[in-house]
Amino acid sequence: MTTDFVDDIKALTFDVFGTVVDWRGSVIREGEQLNAAKGLAIDWPAFADRWRAGYAPAMNRVRQGELPWTKLDALHRMTLDTLLEEFGVADQLSEADKQYLNRVWHRLTPWPDSVAGLQTLKQRFILATLSNGNVSLLVNMARHAGLPWDCVLSSELAGHYKRDPEVYHMAANLLDLKPSQILMVAAHQDDLQAAHREGMRTAFVKRPLEFGPTATPDLSIDPCFDLVAEDFLDLARQLT
Amino acid sequence: MTTDFVDDIKALTFDVFGTVVDWRGSVIREGEQLNAAKGLAIDWPAFADRWRAGYAPAMNRVRQGELPWTKLDALHRMTLDTLLEEFGVADQLSEADKQYLNRVWHRLTPWPDSVAGLQTLKQRFILATLSNGNVSLLVNMARHAGLPWDCVLSSELAGHYKRDPEVYHMAANLLDLKPSQILMVAAHQDDLQAAHREGMRTAFVKRPLEFGPTATPDLSIDPCFDLVAEDFLDLARQLT
Repeated sequence: MTTDFVDDIKALTFDVFGTVVDWRGSVIREGEQLNAAKGLAIDWPAFADRWRAGYAPAMNRVRQGELPWTKLDALHRMTLDTLLEEFGVADQLSEADKQYLNRVWHRLTPWPDSVAGLQTLKQRFILATLSNGNVSLLVNMARHAGLPWDCVLSSELAGHYKRDPEVYHMAANLLDLKPSQILMVAAHQDDLQAAHREGMRTAFVKRPLEFGPTATPDLSIDPCFDLVAEDFLDLARQLT
Repeated sequence: MTTDFVDDIKALTFDVFGTVVDWRGSVIREGEQLNAAKGLAIDWPAFADRWRAGYAPAMNRVRQGELPWTKLDALHRMTLDTLLEEFGVADQLSEADKQYLNRVWHRLTPWPDSVAGLQTLKQRFILATLSNGNVSLLVNMARHAGLPWDCVLSSELAGHYKRDPEVYHMAANLLDLKPSQILMVAAHQDDLQAAHREGMRTAFVKRPLEFGPTATPDLSIDPCFDLVAEDFLDLARQLT
């Protein structure tokens, strides 16, 4: 794997959910606190997985024109309301409780290596999010988790959700860089394949625990990956 | 002047040129270095003032539809090329020299109180730019000057230049706040008047040296200002 291309890289754009932050562990932790506070018995690992499973179908409703542009916060809320009914607890939470719970996605915890890795990478590269999270979600998360972004870029700015090509073009346009000067960093094959199709460089970061300790996520190496890293500290070592 | 409204403020949005950074002093300083390096005798105080004077007419060409949406970098370059001809030095600079000079707007120096004031304000509020500078200009400036923005918002994201109302609405929409939860901070009456018309709160920061030591800028207090501050440290004292 040649790394000559690294000399041309000016900016790193990051997928966030699963790549930078541990959404599943964070939702479970806050959910179990809610169980204790409200005397509930929700199975939070199952709830978290179902909530996340609602993500792609909800975005597809926007992509296919069934919904107008809708912030991810609002898509999360639609899925949440459905799940609270299914789990039989919709009547046990107030509207304020539900609003607070829905914003757990603003309070996700980084993987242990994320902040230190980003701080090192920031010394050499522009660091931007490139996430389906809406801007306010990403801003609140960065403040909560101490993520040192130079710039918060979101699908919301393109009016298209990843993996639509418009999202990657938006990033190159706003950063005023050629796609080949940008390294897309993600733990998901399809995100990197989409970035590669638009001319970006790609770094795959393995996050074996994204879907929990018993899951077997796809960690296979696609030929389109320019770099493969164990975590953000390893990525920083390879790039700096 | 009552300050009860401060309890509702969640985010501060900042005009940048003149309010956060000293564009005139920075252009003069780099210009005089260019004079020395190239054996030129450009009058840089005059050049800086003329360059900045080209800003509003260039934006008006976009606003009136004479030009399609054009990044401020490109508007700066149009004005620069005209001025280099007028000052009789267009042939003495290479294309690379001109590109570098045009990006002096990415390398502007903050006022002495800016970084410390922003760091204090960031502990309590979301801090975002709300500038006519393009996103890449603002990102590069933040890295160069150490400006701790949570979020880089630009007219470029609205496809409209300030003082068009779309710019202020874009900020409220992306931050997912009511306009009344946002405090617009600027050294310019018309920017704050436009923000006030869209429902934002306003803070006027006096920058008596923006146009140089002999200029007499308009420091008058408009009734629409919710706060008036001597500098960012004073603003932080009033807000925290």
